[in-house]
Amino acid sequence: MPRIALIGLGTIGLSMAALHLDREDTSVAVFDPRPDLNEYIRRRLPQLLSSSQGGPVDTLVDTLFSNSRLSIHDTLSSAVSSAEVIQEQGPENEAFKQRTWREIETLALPSAQFWSSTSGIAASIQNVQMTDPSRLLVVHPFNPPHIMPLIEIVPGPTTKQACVDFAVAYFSKHGHHRPVVVRKEIPGFVGNRLAFALFREACSLVNEGVVHARDLDTIVMASLGPRWATQGVFESYHAGGGEGGLASFLDKLGGTMQQVWDGLGTVNVKPQNVDAQDDGVQDDGVVRWKEKVVDQVNEAYGPFTADKAKKKETLLKQVLDVQKDI
Amino acid sequence: MPRIALIGLGTIGLSMAALHLDREDTSVAVFDPRPDLNEYIRRRLPQLLSSSQGGPVDTLVDTLFSNSRLSIHDTLSSAVSSAEVIQEQGPENEAFKQRTWREIETLALPSAQFWSSTSGIAASIQNVQMTDPSRLLVVHPFNPPHIMPLIEIVPGPTTKQACVDFAVAYFSKHGHHRPVVVRKEIPGFVGNRLAFALFREACSLVNEGVVHARDLDTIVMASLGPRWATQGVFESYHAGGGEGGLASFLDKLGGTMQQVWDGLGTVNVKPQNVDAQDDGVQDDGVVRWKEKVVDQVNEAYGPFTADKAKKKETLLKQVLDVQKDI
Repeated sequence: MPRIALIGLGTIGLSMAALHLDREDTSVAVFDPRPDLNEYIRRRLPQLLSSSQGGPVDTLVDTLFSNSRLSIHDTLSSAVSSAEVIQEQGPENEAFKQRTWREIETLALPSAQFWSSTSGIAASIQNVQMTDPSRLLVVHPFNPPHIMPLIEIVPGPTTKQACVDFAVAYFSKHGHHRPVVVRKEIPGFVGNRLAFALFREACSLVNEGVVHARDLDTIVMASLGPRWATQGVFESYHAGGGEGGLASFLDKLGGTMQQVWDGLGTVNVKPQNVDAQDDGVQDDGVVRWKEKVVDQVNEAYGPFTADKAKKKETLLKQVLDVQKDI
Repeated sequence: MPRIALIGLGTIGLSMAALHLDREDTSVAVFDPRPDLNEYIRRRLPQLLSSSQGGPVDTLVDTLFSNSRLSIHDTLSSAVSSAEVIQEQGPENEAFKQRTWREIETLALPSAQFWSSTSGIAASIQNVQMTDPSRLLVVHPFNPPHIMPLIEIVPGPTTKQACVDFAVAYFSKHGHHRPVVVRKEIPGFVGNRLAFALFREACSLVNEGVVHARDLDTIVMASLGPRWATQGVFESYHAGGGEGGLASFLDKLGGTMQQVWDGLGTVNVKPQNVDAQDDGVQDDGVVRWKEKVVDQVNEAYGPFTADKAKKKETLLKQVLDVQKDI
C-alpha cells in the first residue's frame, strides 16, 4: 500500500490526511511540531473521514493507529524514511520549504515522490537547495482537499515527467478527485488566478457603489456558480454561441466584452513596488476599498461559525453528487 | 392578473414567456414579426413550460390560448394596449430600442411598466426619445431565464424608485427567481462583468500555454463552480479567513493576490480605438489567441447539440434544487 508521509498538519494537512486515509490502500505517517498533535488528530480527524470508513466515530482513529494505517512521528526522519510519497503543507515561506526539502532529500528513499501542497511557492523556488530537484512538484488542492475534487499538479521546468504521471495516476485512481496538470509555473496557478481576476472586479464594483457585497454574492450564486458547477467556462460560452460555437459567441458579444475589459477595476490589495508605496493616493485607495468591502461582508455574514461551515460543506457535497451525472 | 406584453420572441423571449406563464396569475401577449410565430410557439414553448402546468404537452399551448393566458398579436399596438408590463427583447441595437420605446410610450397604458431584457444597452440610452423616461429599466436575465434564478434590475439615473420596487416584487414573488438591483449603469452590468473578467484571464492562460481549454474547464468545475453554487465569492473568502473573516484572508493571501493582479492577462477581443486597429501587432495578437482558444474548444466539445443542452439543463436544475436548502 502507498505509504504517504505528511509534513505539517494544519487545516489543509489534516484534510489531506483524510483524503489519503479514505483510500483503502494507503498508510499515512504524520510529522508536525505542535505539542498536542495526538489529541488534535483524535479530535478533528474523525469529522473529516468519509462515512465509508465505518465503525464508531470515537474509535476510528484508534483503529487507524492499531492497524498501522496512521502513525505519528517525533522526527522528520522517522516520518519520511520509508515513505513512497512525501507531501508537505508547512508554512508558506520560501526559506522553510527550501530547507525542509534539502533535509528530506537526505532522509527519503531514492524512489520517493516529493509533493508540496503550497498555494503560492513554485517547485522551482522550493527545490533550489536540492541535489536532485527533478522529483519535486506542486500538488495544489482546493479547500477542503478531502471534499473538493480539484488537484492542480504543477511541475517545475526540471520535474521528471514520471513524477507528474505518478501524481496524476494517484489522484485519478479513486474517481472523486480530478487532477489537472498546469503546464507552466505561474503565480496563483490556474484556479486562484481565475478566482482572483473575478474577485478584483467584485471588490471594485462594491467600492464603486455599483452593488452591495451581499447582492454581488447573490448574483454569483444565482448565475455563474450553478452554471460553472455544471459546465466549464469555455463550454458555457461555446454553447452560448449556438451552432457557431465559441467563435460566434465572441463575434456576437465581443463588443460588450471588450468594453467591459477596457473598464475593469484595478483596486490593489498590497502595493508591490516602491513607487506604489510612495504614492499616497494609491495607498489611500487601498485602505479605502478594503474597509468598505470588509465592512459590507462583516455586516452581511457576521462571524464565521463551525455550524455555517458544516452546512456549506453538506451543500457542496450535494452539488458534487450532481456532477457525478455529467 | 398581471398582463405582460412580450416584444420580440427569440430564444430569450420564448424563455421569458415560459417564466411568466409558469406563474398562475399572469397573461402574456406576444408580438414578433417572424412569419411562423404561431407554429414556432407551438413547437418550442411546451418544452420550456414547467411540468407544474399539467395536462398533455401537445395541448398545453391550445389551453393557454383558449383561456386567454397567451395571445399572439399582429401589431405592436394590439400587444401592448392593455398590458401592465411591456418587456422587450428585440435586437441589441440602440436605434431599434430607442424607436420602439418611443412608439410603445404612445400606445401603452400610463401605468404600464417598461422593461428591457437587454444584456448591453443601458436604460438611459434606450430612453432618450421618450417623453417620460422614468418608467423604463433593464431587467437582465441569465440564459435560460425560465430556469436561471438571476434577474439583474438596472434602473437608469432617472428611473422612478416605484418602478424598481415593482420589478423586484414581481420577480421575488414566486420564490424561484432572485432579482438583484444594480445601482449604477455599467457595461455588462455585474454578472457578465465578473464572468468576463475571469474569461479574459482564462483566454490568456490558454493562449500562453499554461493550460488547455478543456483542462481549464475541469479546474473551474472541480473548484470554483461548486464553491460559488453554494457560497458567494465574498462569503467564501470570508470563511477562508477563519475567525478573522475576509480581513484576515486579505492579509494572508494578499501577497499572492497582488502578484496575480499585477500579472493578469490582457488579451483583447476587439480593438476599440483607431490606435489599436492601426497597430498590426495588436491586431495579429487578437487573431492569434482567438484562433488558439476556439480551436481548443472545438476540439474539446465539438458542435453544440440539443441533447447536450438538455442534459446540462437537467444538471443545472439539480444544482438549483440543492440551493433550496441554503
